[in-house]
Amino acid sequence: MNHSNEQQSNKLSGAEVAKHNSRESCWVIVHGRVYDVTEFMPEHPGGSKIILKYAGKDATEEFEPIHPPDTLEKYLAKDKHLGQVDMSTVEREEKEDDPEEKARQNRIKHMPILEQCYNLMDFEAVARRVMKKTAWAYYSSGADDEITMRENHSAYHKIWFRPRVLVDVEKVDFSTTMLGTKVDIPFYVTATALGKLGNPEGEVILTRGARKHNVIQMIPTLASCSFDEIVDAAEDGQVQWLQLYVNKNRDITKKIVQHAEERGCKGLFITVDAPQLGRREKDMRSKFSDTGSNVQNTGGDNVDRSQGAARAISSFIDPSLSWKDIPWFLSITKMPILLKGVQRVEDVLRAIECGLQGVVLSNHGGRQLDFARSGIEVLAEVMPVLRERGWENRIEMYVDGGVRRATDIIKALCLGAKGVGIGRPFLFAMSAYGLPGVDRAMQLLKDEMEMNMRLIGCSRVDQLNPTLVDTSGLSLHATTVPSDTLGLGVYDPLVSPQEMVRAKL
Amino acid sequence: MNHSNEQQSNKLSGAEVAKHNSRESCWVIVHGRVYDVTEFMPEHPGGSKIILKYAGKDATEEFEPIHPPDTLEKYLAKDKHLGQVDMSTVEREEKEDDPEEKARQNRIKHMPILEQCYNLMDFEAVARRVMKKTAWAYYSSGADDEITMRENHSAYHKIWFRPRVLVDVEKVDFSTTMLGTKVDIPFYVTATALGKLGNPEGEVILTRGARKHNVIQMIPTLASCSFDEIVDAAEDGQVQWLQLYVNKNRDITKKIVQHAEERGCKGLFITVDAPQLGRREKDMRSKFSDTGSNVQNTGGDNVDRSQGAARAISSFIDPSLSWKDIPWFLSITKMPILLKGVQRVEDVLRAIECGLQGVVLSNHGGRQLDFARSGIEVLAEVMPVLRERGWENRIEMYVDGGVRRATDIIKALCLGAKGVGIGRPFLFAMSAYGLPGVDRAMQLLKDEMEMNMRLIGCSRVDQLNPTLVDTSGLSLHATTVPSDTLGLGVYDPLVSPQEMVRAKL
Amino acid sequence: MNHSNEQQSNKLSGAEVAKHNSRESCWVIVHGRVYDVTEFMPEHPGGSKIILKYAGKDATEEFEPIHPPDTLEKYLAKDKHLGQVDMSTVEREEKEDDPEEKARQNRIKHMPILEQCYNLMDFEAVARRVMKKTAWAYYSSGADDEITMRENHSAYHKIWFRPRVLVDVEKVDFSTTMLGTKVDIPFYVTATALGKLGNPEGEVILTRGARKHNVIQMIPTLASCSFDEIVDAAEDGQVQWLQLYVNKNRDITKKIVQHAEERGCKGLFITVDAPQLGRREKDMRSKFSDTGSNVQNTGGDNVDRSQGAARAISSFIDPSLSWKDIPWFLSITKMPILLKGVQRVEDVLRAIECGLQGVVLSNHGGRQLDFARSGIEVLAEVMPVLRERGWENRIEMYVDGGVRRATDIIKALCLGAKGVGIGRPFLFAMSAYGLPGVDRAMQLLKDEMEMNMRLIGCSRVDQLNPTLVDTSGLSLHATTVPSDTLGLGVYDPLVSPQEMVRAKL
Amino acid sequence: MNHSNEQQSNKLSGAEVAKHNSRESCWVIVHGRVYDVTEFMPEHPGGSKIILKYAGKDATEEFEPIHPPDTLEKYLAKDKHLGQVDMSTVEREEKEDDPEEKARQNRIKHMPILEQCYNLMDFEAVARRVMKKTAWAYYSSGADDEITMRENHSAYHKIWFRPRVLVDVEKVDFSTTMLGTKVDIPFYVTATALGKLGNPEGEVILTRGARKHNVIQMIPTLASCSFDEIVDAAEDGQVQWLQLYVNKNRDITKKIVQHAEERGCKGLFITVDAPQLGRREKDMRSKFSDTGSNVQNTGGDNVDRSQGAARAISSFIDPSLSWKDIPWFLSITKMPILLKGVQRVEDVLRAIECGLQGVVLSNHGGRQLDFARSGIEVLAEVMPVLRERGWENRIEMYVDGGVRRATDIIKALCLGAKGVGIGRPFLFAMSAYGLPGVDRAMQLLKDEMEMNMRLIGCSRVDQLNPTLVDTSGLSLHATTVPSDTLGLGVYDPLVSPQEMVRAKL
Repeated sequence: MNHSNEQQSNKLSGAEVAKHNSRESCWVIVHGRVYDVTEFMPEHPGGSKIILKYAGKDATEEFEPIHPPDTLEKYLAKDKHLGQVDMSTVEREEKEDDPEEKARQNRIKHMPILEQCYNLMDFEAVARRVMKKTAWAYYSSGADDEITMRENHSAYHKIWFRPRVLVDVEKVDFSTTMLGTKVDIPFYVTATALGKLGNPEGEVILTRGARKHNVIQMIPTLASCSFDEIVDAAEDGQVQWLQLYVNKNRDITKKIVQHAEERGCKGLFITVDAPQLGRREKDMRSKFSDTGSNVQNTGGDNVDRSQGAARAISSFIDPSLSWKDIPWFLSITKMPILLKGVQRVEDVLRAIECGLQGVVLSNHGGRQLDFARSGIEVLAEVMPVLRERGWENRIEMYVDGGVRRATDIIKALCLGAKGVGIGRPFLFAMSAYGLPGVDRAMQLLKDEMEMNMRLIGCSRVDQLNPTLVDTSGLSLHATTVPSDTLGLGVYDPLVSPQEMVRAKL
Repeated sequence: MNHSNEQQSNKLSGAEVAKHNSRESCWVIVHGRVYDVTEFMPEHPGGSKIILKYAGKDATEEFEPIHPPDTLEKYLAKDKHLGQVDMSTVEREEKEDDPEEKARQNRIKHMPILEQCYNLMDFEAVARRVMKKTAWAYYSSGADDEITMRENHSAYHKIWFRPRVLVDVEKVDFSTTMLGTKVDIPFYVTATALGKLGNPEGEVILTRGARKHNVIQMIPTLASCSFDEIVDAAEDGQVQWLQLYVNKNRDITKKIVQHAEERGCKGLFITVDAPQLGRREKDMRSKFSDTGSNVQNTGGDNVDRSQGAARAISSFIDPSLSWKDIPWFLSITKMPILLKGVQRVEDVLRAIECGLQGVVLSNHGGRQLDFARSGIEVLAEVMPVLRERGWENRIEMYVDGGVRRATDIIKALCLGAKGVGIGRPFLFAMSAYGLPGVDRAMQLLKDEMEMNMRLIGCSRVDQLNPTLVDTSGLSLHATTVPSDTLGLGVYDPLVSPQEMVRAKL
Repeated sequence: MNHSNEQQSNKLSGAEVAKHNSRESCWVIVHGRVYDVTEFMPEHPGGSKIILKYAGKDATEEFEPIHPPDTLEKYLAKDKHLGQVDMSTVEREEKEDDPEEKARQNRIKHMPILEQCYNLMDFEAVARRVMKKTAWAYYSSGADDEITMRENHSAYHKIWFRPRVLVDVEKVDFSTTMLGTKVDIPFYVTATALGKLGNPEGEVILTRGARKHNVIQMIPTLASCSFDEIVDAAEDGQVQWLQLYVNKNRDITKKIVQHAEERGCKGLFITVDAPQLGRREKDMRSKFSDTGSNVQNTGGDNVDRSQGAARAISSFIDPSLSWKDIPWFLSITKMPILLKGVQRVEDVLRAIECGLQGVVLSNHGGRQLDFARSGIEVLAEVMPVLRERGWENRIEMYVDGGVRRATDIIKALCLGAKGVGIGRPFLFAMSAYGLPGVDRAMQLLKDEMEMNMRLIGCSRVDQLNPTLVDTSGLSLHATTVPSDTLGLGVYDPLVSPQEMVRAKL
Repeated sequence: MNHSNEQQSNKLSGAEVAKHNSRESCWVIVHGRVYDVTEFMPEHPGGSKIILKYAGKDATEEFEPIHPPDTLEKYLAKDKHLGQVDMSTVEREEKEDDPEEKARQNRIKHMPILEQCYNLMDFEAVARRVMKKTAWAYYSSGADDEITMRENHSAYHKIWFRPRVLVDVEKVDFSTTMLGTKVDIPFYVTATALGKLGNPEGEVILTRGARKHNVIQMIPTLASCSFDEIVDAAEDGQVQWLQLYVNKNRDITKKIVQHAEERGCKGLFITVDAPQLGRREKDMRSKFSDTGSNVQNTGGDNVDRSQGAARAISSFIDPSLSWKDIPWFLSITKMPILLKGVQRVEDVLRAIECGLQGVVLSNHGGRQLDFARSGIEVLAEVMPVLRERGWENRIEMYVDGGVRRATDIIKALCLGAKGVGIGRPFLFAMSAYGLPGVDRAMQLLKDEMEMNMRLIGCSRVDQLNPTLVDTSGLSLHATTVPSDTLGLGVYDPLVSPQEMVRAKL
């Protein structure tokens, strides 16, 4: 029986598909079509377990948010495309009465209205309650102990203001220019993967939000929407940048870059902090509870070495990428090229020497190397060196990671950044409230920005400068002496006045 | 029908007023008079929602504490004053049986007696339990994450004493002189807005408390009582100062200043840290829960941009105020002029050069720019520079924010302050216990002051000097490395000896 | 009727006494005798309320622990001693069925056995559970926010070891000499007041414990036992020191000092950190709940100014004591004289210049000036200055406050102390377990001492030196930036693996 | 009656043994043989109580895990070996229905499967739940307040990365060489005592795990398995080292060392941080609750002075060991000799001068001297001094304590270590999951290592160097100012948006 001709009119039946439900022969249905993934399974970047869960069944709902539309076309050999299935004959999975999902639906019913969100943290609080657990785990997780992920915002708390008073701040203009593009406020929407996990429409919602507030969106390589969908969602003149994972096959990379340039992208951001995609244990744990409950073997040889994933990924992301590839990039595009993920001053200097237009000081949102320093800390290390050499205008500096308040943006600009990238907060706003959420999140930042520009005593961003901040504690990575457990336990803490139980009369 | 003539003898009926209960036509009753606020509503600094809640009804109770008596006279056009209403015809709002309010009344019934308050924190603890939630939120809130608000007191904890021993401290005199006025103890009651939120009598209670303990009161521009009420409450010879928000209309400002001088004010404190009034999210959230529960629209276009408030406020507070306005102030009054809200040494030097008599190092109680440094930290930055120039006696330095203990006052004086301003603690004492509360709060400070002057080994405030304190950690803004969540989770903490369950005999 | 003749055989009746139960006429019974305290009441250092509680009644149980036996003899005029009462006629107070006391008795029944205490903290944990609340509050409380009280131990946690290895430590000798007296271990039992609050026998238990372990006891001026009782409890050759509060009446002081010398005391420690006894709010709160529950007046004029207490105390402790009194002390005794409570290097230098034999760097256990630095921190400030001048052997340095571990003792000795004073831990051991508790506490310290001398690589205390410790963080008084409340709230912490709910078979 | 002849065929009866159940005559059964321990009891390093618990009974189960197989042969005089007992006549102890044990068995039944462990902390979390309380207490406890034990891992959190980007890291090789042996990854299994407490097979499981991952195992002197059992468990060519406690009797030591050399050990690690074995209170407390519940005497003279234990141990571990013994060690073996437990730079220099091949910077896992610094901190102190002298290649530096992540290993190597020792994590993995647990733990480290080598931008361990880390905060031992209890209590924390309770329609 040859099922490989997709044009054939005879649809497969659900019963036929259902027979192929094992590691030996594994078919799955996606969007009404059947695919034989038996051979592909061991190479699946997400592991084979999750595929086996849907062996012989309809996997569309699980597949959809985490794969761009053209995934199967690109990565599964044509002869494994077995043609259409008659969906009316496919048994509908009786959804188990999942109490966790019921609780989530209930939380959604009572979720706070949008007006109750007063800052970017609030969207995260709501998203945590209303998102699917696995989606939340994917967005919210970081590397190892998530120290760097949290440090990213915490670092801003070590920077304090030295505001000026008695400056005319009636009119405040916080617009600026990034790589030649005029924007309303000095942030851009940075690239984040798998937007459909949070919202069925995916990254195009961010495109619309960016348009509304006149800021730039950086399009991710690993988007849920295809690149063209995201570009198509932009309006005339709306500027987008491209975030690039460099493929081992440079022809593919070249095609991606040149296509982006043709479609009008105004900047190429090469990710350099991810030669291998990070382990995120919160994410792994959430997936385990999803698929692992039928695994009972604790024997040593059943240990998943994750080598499949590592190997599979290596075709998407080339771990051999190095400084000697830079000239080639400069040769294939006229877009400004920036490095995303630089983490020390030596590499910033080298980027300048290579003739690049900028760097993003970033640790990938704390998702790659734990104990990498925050972008803002690295910025404070970098700028004095650049100024000493008179190089501060030869490059545009950006930082991302941990930005949650307009004061954070102002701190970065005081220290010399051209702008900041913001990622997760918009994902959370989008996941909880869709476009209105993104809209409000951006508006809140604008409101905060106007207020805080006034309060620091500056009416334009070019007035922001290092004398307005105190960063003396920024590079201190202190832990305190482990707690005096017994001492704290025996200490009888002071209390406030207690309720009066008055004598009965 | 023309209601604009206030002299008319025909009173309006409650039923007539009740018809105007919508955005299209909105009348409200205040103190037995009717006002048409339909057109004014969008400009209301507090937003239109809160007005709509009282459309067609008696708003007196809500209006009273947050508007000085002459507000409507001043800000609502005369033709919108529709005359008196026959209050007997106004339907009494059946107060809903609010369980939260019932719980509060119960807490009031069992509130601690005044003698149970042993320090200034205690009044705050009681006030938190017995105040209306919205009033508490207004007083207790700060900017953004309230980091600076808390840092203000926390900063004092970074200053430690180097006390002298074997000094004769039998007689301790901690009186001092502020702008030429002799006071019993080196603090003054600083300006805080909306005193009637905490106590129906408002700021005059503070006037009486200040009198009793011979300290100076600074009268706030945004008081609930009118300026003259507060001055009238003072006794002969009692000294008051004026805190000034500068109006865009300088004629109004001039009138305020010169009126204050005529009424005997002895100092003019121009607020310079509030070109725009801060966003305080705790306050916003508390108001939302008060008025927002009938809002069901989560759409993006219903987002309240708060522009109404910003615009409205800008007539009260001029964001264009700048150094070049200072000579004009010097020309319109003979009162000493001080800047309230200076936050870095450069601006202190400039104030001296402008011929001003003093500055208050302040961040507005942490209600304006979050991550502004504490006044006491700025003081430690300022004084060495002044001393180096020999300028330390050309100006009087004050600090406010976070003062809760006599030791805090002593620390400020050791570092060079002439005195400190205390605000919230007296508001909380007043809100919980009225004048006796304020009286006890001040007395507790005096008791602590006498004790601690002895213990530091000084019998007069002019003996306080920098060698008596260790400030080496003051300017360090440290956060610790984000917590080792897993490590802390698996650590099995030491415990104290457990109860013995003896063997049965 | 004249009751003043104590020799009269006619005993008073309980009924007669019971009539004098008011502020106007107030009699109390102590140890079977009646006293008229009507006039004395306002001068009572502990306030009049507590006396009124026992007006017309037997106050023995309350009086006993907090007054030395000869108090009434000394401080109440003879004509107020009204003679004996026939105790059989005195109505026994029906003890209310106090649920708190019942719970305490139950805790005592199940208290851990002594062997379960493995360190000094453990005695505090037990004492907290089994002591009377007021007694616990008196012992455990400190000044203001109790910051210094806690810092005292915490400071030791900032000192880390640089131990030597491969040193022969088979035989470890940690005995030393203090003011010429050979002791087994370099600590002494420092002076603490009111020992009978914790144990009916009072300070003599400490005398016996000190004897057993061959350490010195410092006898407190404010002991529950009389001075002579404590000296009598010592065995032949057992060394004791005297802690002295200097009385305004120097004749009294002289008598005390010379009596102590005659009785064999070998050191005079003049307390210099307490010109006024500290306010301890935990103590005040505990007393309030004991006596204040019938007070319903919250009016301002009922405020207790505590002036009575301050005035009364001033006869016991002279706040005018100063450096110029030192020569007089040197003239009245041959005992070595040391200052207890010195808190900065300048005063140590002066003490040397005055010819004194030593100082105790101390802040009175954190009970006087809050934010005074710990003794151990001051020691690290003092010794380098002394060594620079070559004065390190001209004086003996002691520290007290916060010592809980032998490692603390070793740290102090490494930094230059001759020995350390330990107070509260022995009080708690005595309160929980009596003499066996004190014995075990001291033995535990000896066991720890032997172990840790070995582990730091020293076989005698004279080998302890500054290179064995790292004190670089000792003088840093850091607080962290106020917590990122919202950020911490939204962070989803990592968790350890969860229980497996295996599929049912 | 003479029972000393082991060859006799007449077995003893259980009833006969049961009579000897007191301090006066105490027999115990181990592995079917009877021993008279009456005289030995007071010398038992573990105290006499635990022996008395089994007087007249079968002690095998308790004895087994904490004594090497040849213990009784070695330490009990032959005439106390009373011969075999007829086990059928020994009364089986009715195991009490211990609710704690039942709960533990239940936790074991639901323990997470091995795949749920994603990092080394996870094994500790599982082990804590499934191990016997006393075994857990022995493994997990540290000295005094366990400050150093926790600092060991915490110290790594003060070291942050300065990663390089754009380095070709396709192939990552993290193998290295230790004392000439090629290993897969730069850690070794360090020596830890009493392996059978966690797993009935004991240390041989670690031998097998080390083999599988090609790393070195250090054999502990105090293993549960005998030395030869552990060597026998190794496969051909598998390298092991010997950890040595030096016996007072140097002949015994010589025999141990030379036997190890003959059996092929490739390194001798002399423990120098334990002249006396540490007090670990968590361990003591857990043992107390096991044996102490029938003790009711709280009298002072029943205090266990622990002198028995100290004296007994002193025959195993010689506290007089010193630098002058080193030449002797060099004379008796050709194995490289290293010192384990060096804690300051001075002693590292001396070790080099003595001609030793290496040191382990270690504080014995925080089990000996509390407030000893972490090995990694000492390493940062040592290496600059060595480099200054050009001595960095004259010795191999190792660190142990607190290593939990591959990033920790990388940090140590960046700072100059040749490798790190890991102990407890493998014990916990073994205790929870046996060999598969150890296997997975090691594999996880390898996975992390590969990933993080890539992310730091190094493809071989010899590229790791100090410029890749920021250690500026490493040597800061900070505590924060004691908490502002009242202030924190009255602060009303910010909250995230609350659930919406919508108006009913």
